[in-house]
Amino acid sequence: MIVTPQHVRFDSLPLDSGASLAQVDVAYQTYGVLNRSRSNGILLLHALTGDAHVAGISQETGKPGWWDNSVGPGKAFDTEKYFIVCANVLGGCRGTTGPASINPATGAHYAMSFPVITICDMVRLQKKLVDHLGIERLLAVAGGSMGGMQALEWAVAYPEAVAAVIPIATTSRHSAQQIAFNEVGRQAIMADPDWNQGDYYGGKPPARGLSVARMVGHITYMSDESMREKFGRRLRDKERYGFDFSVDFEVESYLRYRGAQFVERFDANSYLYITKALDYFDLANGRGSLAEALGQTAARFLVISFTSDWLYPTYQSLEIVKALRSRNRDVAYCELTSNYGHDAFLVDIGEQSEILRGFLASTFKEAA
Amino acid sequence: MIVTPQHVRFDSLPLDSGASLAQVDVAYQTYGVLNRSRSNGILLLHALTGDAHVAGISQETGKPGWWDNSVGPGKAFDTEKYFIVCANVLGGCRGTTGPASINPATGAHYAMSFPVITICDMVRLQKKLVDHLGIERLLAVAGGSMGGMQALEWAVAYPEAVAAVIPIATTSRHSAQQIAFNEVGRQAIMADPDWNQGDYYGGKPPARGLSVARMVGHITYMSDESMREKFGRRLRDKERYGFDFSVDFEVESYLRYRGAQFVERFDANSYLYITKALDYFDLANGRGSLAEALGQTAARFLVISFTSDWLYPTYQSLEIVKALRSRNRDVAYCELTSNYGHDAFLVDIGEQSEILRGFLASTFKEAA
Repeated sequence: MIVTPQHVRFDSLPLDSGASLAQVDVAYQTYGVLNRSRSNGILLLHALTGDAHVAGISQETGKPGWWDNSVGPGKAFDTEKYFIVCANVLGGCRGTTGPASINPATGAHYAMSFPVITICDMVRLQKKLVDHLGIERLLAVAGGSMGGMQALEWAVAYPEAVAAVIPIATTSRHSAQQIAFNEVGRQAIMADPDWNQGDYYGGKPPARGLSVARMVGHITYMSDESMREKFGRRLRDKERYGFDFSVDFEVESYLRYRGAQFVERFDANSYLYITKALDYFDLANGRGSLAEALGQTAARFLVISFTSDWLYPTYQSLEIVKALRSRNRDVAYCELTSNYGHDAFLVDIGEQSEILRGFLASTFKEAA
Repeated sequence: MIVTPQHVRFDSLPLDSGASLAQVDVAYQTYGVLNRSRSNGILLLHALTGDAHVAGISQETGKPGWWDNSVGPGKAFDTEKYFIVCANVLGGCRGTTGPASINPATGAHYAMSFPVITICDMVRLQKKLVDHLGIERLLAVAGGSMGGMQALEWAVAYPEAVAAVIPIATTSRHSAQQIAFNEVGRQAIMADPDWNQGDYYGGKPPARGLSVARMVGHITYMSDESMREKFGRRLRDKERYGFDFSVDFEVESYLRYRGAQFVERFDANSYLYITKALDYFDLANGRGSLAEALGQTAARFLVISFTSDWLYPTYQSLEIVKALRSRNRDVAYCELTSNYGHDAFLVDIGEQSEILRGFLASTFKEAA
């Protein structure tokens, strides 16, 4: 299935910072058909570097979507039963307005004049899109990592607009360690002279800094075990240590390759803005406590974490589950066994698919 | 106690790479008095960014040594009983020959013409120092992290020259994840244009790259728990999010400060060479297996790991312990409970001190 994004423009978007954006474009993709009662809509929410292209083969890149193993006919998010929507986030660089976009007020790229955004801002824009699509109440919102944060925010901000919420491999607030890893990535980008205070559009992007940021990210997405299984101490194209600073180990080669590849498809300023939104995220912020925030929700919850995910460890999912239970909310929780670390929700999807399938089916039946 | 390093020069040092260094200086410090039977000598081995200044107040910097809480009169390494030696490693930048040193053959800094070195090379040079000091057999060699790797190499390479070996928070070989974190640090340094292929002496050092490398390191030295306890999500000098890219969180401020501070005292090329030595380290390399390597040893072992150390996790210490036991070697093992992560061996020293004290005393009694 060859897919291309659709686009919609909204006149304005107020932001948590107090600023507002005058004109906001959203790139999104849909799969399946919205039923007549408009009750089968599911919003999928991507992680830090994802985009609207969740499934199918992109006409632009020829590559499959980031959750192609989970979205399609007969898959966990079954496009024969559900109407699936996925949009590029606010601040992104894949069709939705972000720092690389042209500021209509100046005719120039926003760059670092783009306002700082939050997860709530991203969700506020998604709500506009869902309204635009004529869906009053979503069957579900689901996402992993940053997508899970957005799912939580949906549940709290728009309790009547969503029947089920599926936060996967995520947290209700970024911890000091999570902030620290993001800060290293930002510092790596801003240390690159090509970053030039964010004004590099039309010139040379800060490829070296962004590549280092991505390398740090990649390590945190894998687990010690999965790296050992994938690379061990295997040497790259040589039989002994090179005794120089070229690539010795396969893991070095992999990281350099993934770093270089990332630079081709992602905007460094978007990386700054989106990681900042992650770090600001605290569902309890301005809502008293996590339990008070989640006490405002009306949806069913399915919370999923993975044993080897050390970036968003199980204890953070349990905090969400405990807060929901303390307010007598309907919550199912699964810790799935996987060696794949944080990436598990994207790659190790066997059990996850079965659980998602059952949870969505029972929600759909109940809602019908 | 104000201390200054001593220096000694050796004529040559053969290296694992096949290269050799024509002239090698070693900076070292000693504490306490070598007894008449020369049986109370202990060699302490520093970690990646440490130096010879293990205890006392440095005349140069006015600061205490990196293990000042563990070395001194009445402390774990009791300078009233033992003669303590600590030397800056080969490849370092604190008095021992490294890439910042002048190559006697050219009169210029070695920079990247410095040969790639290994943990074995570092230990080979330490052996020369210990011979120079007239110590035929050390009572103990001890160190954490990279120091622990050197201690293991001492036990295998010079079995008759050491009565007891104390590897702390370390591994017998660098894993893919450990290599990956080091590679990110190296890439950050080499991405900095000021690195200039290593030729920056007399000019501007690659401060931004080295600072990013140090920030990555710092995160891995702490634990999720210790970061949460130390910083949480506390804001720095403000009451709400700044909605800009200046420092918001205390953890960001801490990392930036530690990164900037590190640049003042450490050479970027040394960081490249020493991390490469860490990544090359595999005690079993050329020795069949870990059990065969450790089967060559004659020392008593005390292996220590820490519950929250995720950089050098307990399972890596257990691999060492199992290999030693499989060859009927004398090994005691302690996993100590601490929230301090990898830094625990430097800062959370209560229990560690008691264990070290007892182990050293019984070794000394046996050896006497």
